[in-house]
Amino acid sequence: MKLYNAEFSGNCYKVRLLLSLLDIDREIVPIDIINKEHKSPKYLSKNPLGELPALEDGAHTLRDSQAILVYLAKKYGKDVWLPNNAKEMALVTQWLSTACNDIARGPMDARAHYKFKFDVDIKKAREKSISILTVIDKHLAAREWLELNRATIADIACFPYIALAHEGNISLEPYTNIQKWIGNIKKLPNYIPMPGLD
Amino acid sequence: MKLYNAEFSGNCYKVRLLLSLLDIDREIVPIDIINKEHKSPKYLSKNPLGELPALEDGAHTLRDSQAILVYLAKKYGKDVWLPNNAKEMALVTQWLSTACNDIARGPMDARAHYKFKFDVDIKKAREKSISILTVIDKHLAAREWLELNRATIADIACFPYIALAHEGNISLEPYTNIQKWIGNIKKLPNYIPMPGLD
Repeated sequence: MKLYNAEFSGNCYKVRLLLSLLDIDREIVPIDIINKEHKSPKYLSKNPLGELPALEDGAHTLRDSQAILVYLAKKYGKDVWLPNNAKEMALVTQWLSTACNDIARGPMDARAHYKFKFDVDIKKAREKSISILTVIDKHLAAREWLELNRATIADIACFPYIALAHEGNISLEPYTNIQKWIGNIKKLPNYIPMPGLD
Repeated sequence: MKLYNAEFSGNCYKVRLLLSLLDIDREIVPIDIINKEHKSPKYLSKNPLGELPALEDGAHTLRDSQAILVYLAKKYGKDVWLPNNAKEMALVTQWLSTACNDIARGPMDARAHYKFKFDVDIKKAREKSISILTVIDKHLAAREWLELNRATIADIACFPYIALAHEGNISLEPYTNIQKWIGNIKKLPNYIPMPGLD
């Protein structure tokens, strides 16, 4: 299994993290974003959207970090990380959407603005960050994990850009339940950090 | 089953469409967006994100249109609309992410700008629309459906805001494969239109 990877991408990191938690062997293929390797014809043949990560397993390549989490969880996670029951699967899926919508438009965009100088409407990214972090903090008041009283890919999908919020000048100080949840994730067996996180 | 619904929301429509395709009885609960009913304490107790749609089935309520599609497909779709195999499930999931990321930031935002006067960076929404429509059109050159040679929730998730692109002043004229794909969806048994679509 080959992971096309950029070290500083939170979306790549969430895949690296689940691979580690599931103790799956993989080869890391570094893609040089600064020199636009992700827009090269060679990489576009792997992922026509020109985004990272992509995962190659045998003859097929998957794009999109959320879809890759689903793939790994379904294939190697024994229904623990992604349950097979309709209601439970949907509860987890809600947070995959939150990761690629609200969290992407909030703390991910704020980080892209400050860390990578992307052209981002920072006012909107801040507003979105605060509204989604407030909802998640309230949700976690009575819970250790986002759903099902255990770690699932819901947590893995939402974790990186929330934990990296400080790189977008978003403080997690008001969100004490989120801070506890981050601590829970860091205690998972086989947890690995990413650059910028301990 | 109760669907909290706004008639002009493409995200609500995708759920109404799958409910119809699967021939599932449901009660429609209209939510008055203009008068901010979706931000009322009563609705926020159903969906803390204050977004539509939400689906109530017995004691539990699900938010997020993509998660609701997963729920309905998994519970009532007999592995046809959402396959149970890891690779095939991930292929479909890729497009759920495309729906709530690229399509949301592209044609959905463009429509929100022109139709509902939302504060949107219309230049970016147009650029995003053109880049994602170009990728999807190319992808559909050799295919009738987004994945697996049949209609799945991948198609249902991506369909509404692509088919409504004209309401965001995005023409689908250059995208002939997308036009054919839209035609295929409209021919599905039990297809229902939404306001603005035939």
